[in-house]
Amino acid sequence: MSLSMYEASIPVFSRVLTNLSAILGKAAAHAESQGIDPAVLINARLAPDMFPLSRQVQIATDAVKGAAARLAQVDTPSFADTESSFADLQERVAKTQAFIQCISADQVNGSESLPISIKTPNRELNFSGQTFLLSFALPNLYFHVTTTYAILRHNGVALGKMDYLGAA
Amino acid sequence: MSLSMYEASIPVFSRVLTNLSAILGKAAAHAESQGIDPAVLINARLAPDMFPLSRQVQIATDAVKGAAARLAQVDTPSFADTESSFADLQERVAKTQAFIQCISADQVNGSESLPISIKTPNRELNFSGQTFLLSFALPNLYFHVTTTYAILRHNGVALGKMDYLGAA
Repeated sequence: MSLSMYEASIPVFSRVLTNLSAILGKAAAHAESQGIDPAVLINARLAPDMFPLSRQVQIATDAVKGAAARLAQVDTPSFADTESSFADLQERVAKTQAFIQCISADQVNGSESLPISIKTPNRELNFSGQTFLLSFALPNLYFHVTTTYAILRHNGVALGKMDYLGAA
Repeated sequence: MSLSMYEASIPVFSRVLTNLSAILGKAAAHAESQGIDPAVLINARLAPDMFPLSRQVQIATDAVKGAAARLAQVDTPSFADTESSFADLQERVAKTQAFIQCISADQVNGSESLPISIKTPNRELNFSGQTFLLSFALPNLYFHVTTTYAILRHNGVALGKMDYLGAA
């Protein structure tokens, strides 16, 4: 077995989405059992100038579909950013999962040196496929999933780090 | 260029430590400029049953040195968990950086199938080197660095995601 661009991306993304879905499931169950309006959690933020939970989930799924599409050199599916319930957010995670399941190892492997350019509001970031995956796509994905987790923990949802890491 | 276990670990860890150090530097400067006791930030938490900032940094550096040592099959250096200032935390990050800089590509490459076992308070987790790196060590590291960032943002420190991602 040798590490490949596919192994370091698609199955990792899939695992993160599975864990994110489980975390959202626990959040929805917490709101239900505690009589909390789910919108309170969905709109919760850690700071007034940070994004709310819904946007964190949107960006996490964007990070996955964007990275998978760039590495496989296929078009990125576009989702309207209109999710307002846990069911909506779960559907978005599921659509992202379905998209990446259709990407094969052959499409991603060999992308180490593929030129990848990301436009941010301030500048353009230029990467090779390998540096894009390792120093942008993965840390960015984990940033938004961890922030989702942190928003929920800060609001009293009973989660542990194993919910984030997933089953071994 | 082909993706390797070394490329997916040591340079990535080094980059994360560099970014973590810069974030801690901005936090210390914020405390200084705002007349805030640095201990307030160092002991801040996002929830009463989450770890404070100091422990997040300790665990992030433990994640790096533990993962690097396991993949390279060398002993993990032990640090006393006694940091109580930003200078102490910076020293810990620097010691971790110095440790991993001494690990060569030859020591880590080929570790894809290396059996790695992690004892948690509740159970033992068994991995191959590849699954350990991709589904445990990296997400765990990003979890604690993002939580450090989130604690500081929640407490008003002016940081942006590029501080976490680092220079492209």
